[in-house]
Amino acid sequence: MASIQRIEVGARMSKAVIHGDTVYLAGIVADDPKADVTTQTKQVLAEIDRLLAAAGTDKTKLLRTNIWLADMKDFGAMNAVWDSWVSAGNTPARATVEASLATPDYKVEIMVVAAK
Amino acid sequence: MASIQRIEVGARMSKAVIHGDTVYLAGIVADDPKADVTTQTKQVLAEIDRLLAAAGTDKTKLLRTNIWLADMKDFGAMNAVWDSWVSAGNTPARATVEASLATPDYKVEIMVVAAK
Amino acid sequence: MASIQRIEVGARMSKAVIHGDTVYLAGIVADDPKADVTTQTKQVLAEIDRLLAAAGTDKTKLLRTNIWLADMKDFGAMNAVWDSWVSAGNTPARATVEASLATPDYKVEIMVVAAK
Repeated sequence: MASIQRIEVGARMSKAVIHGDTVYLAGIVADDPKADVTTQTKQVLAEIDRLLAAAGTDKTKLLRTNIWLADMKDFGAMNAVWDSWVSAGNTPARATVEASLATPDYKVEIMVVAAK
Repeated sequence: MASIQRIEVGARMSKAVIHGDTVYLAGIVADDPKADVTTQTKQVLAEIDRLLAAAGTDKTKLLRTNIWLADMKDFGAMNAVWDSWVSAGNTPARATVEASLATPDYKVEIMVVAAK
Repeated sequence: MASIQRIEVGARMSKAVIHGDTVYLAGIVADDPKADVTTQTKQVLAEIDRLLAAAGTDKTKLLRTNIWLADMKDFGAMNAVWDSWVSAGNTPARATVEASLATPDYKVEIMVVAAK
């Protein structure tokens, strides 16, 4: 059986879980929930970069991404940040839907699966 | 290629699908949709325990969890049940968003991926 | 480490990503967003068939499926198409929730994981 390694393990969830050569990240929200969607998306993607590095991988190995926007009117602004961040030629399978998040201030949450 | 084993196979979905040493469970809702969120969450997690056992694993091997709440005001009540259920030191990557579920009575749905 | 192969790679996302013997498809919406939910679901499932074939697999190897409906009142109509499409005895773990999609016209989006 493949090994399981957990990163930044909390009482409720872990920030990342590595199973064999698959890396599952938690749904990530911004550090600053009062920021606009552009800043929130940048903060989310920086945190994803950090957690992927902690798991021994990076954004060139993204497999699948789920994005939740609190308001779909932010689709263009989120995508502008996403498009400049994602690795050309290495884009993941992705889906984006609208959903209210843990607190009303959060505008975007992103959850990824990557290869190690 | 890794083998595929399906558990409680229905015409629309299977309750669990094992692929190699990865176990995918269906989105689980409560037995009693008229119950409050605390009881519904307990019923969902008991069913997840049952299905994980049927797949030859348990909650210590959770990898990823998606939680949908019909109303985010139930976040605290759901988490109280979750926090007492999840295995300390073995928490999964998790995301929780708000979404209307199959019928208006359902307050919580949980879908997990686990290692075998 | 398992290899990664990407199919129909765009600047924002890939339509499918193969990691070892696991295939992740993007969230798929209909070609014709003005069609009714029955037609949209048929178009989505035809596109999933096409992408699974491109990845060297088919619907008999579905592992996990997430379905988003813009309006849960379409649950029955979507399921009628789904039930006639899915492979008997080979149904995936599935969850369906309500969510607004990228544009208001889209009525259904489906994202699957399959074995290769």
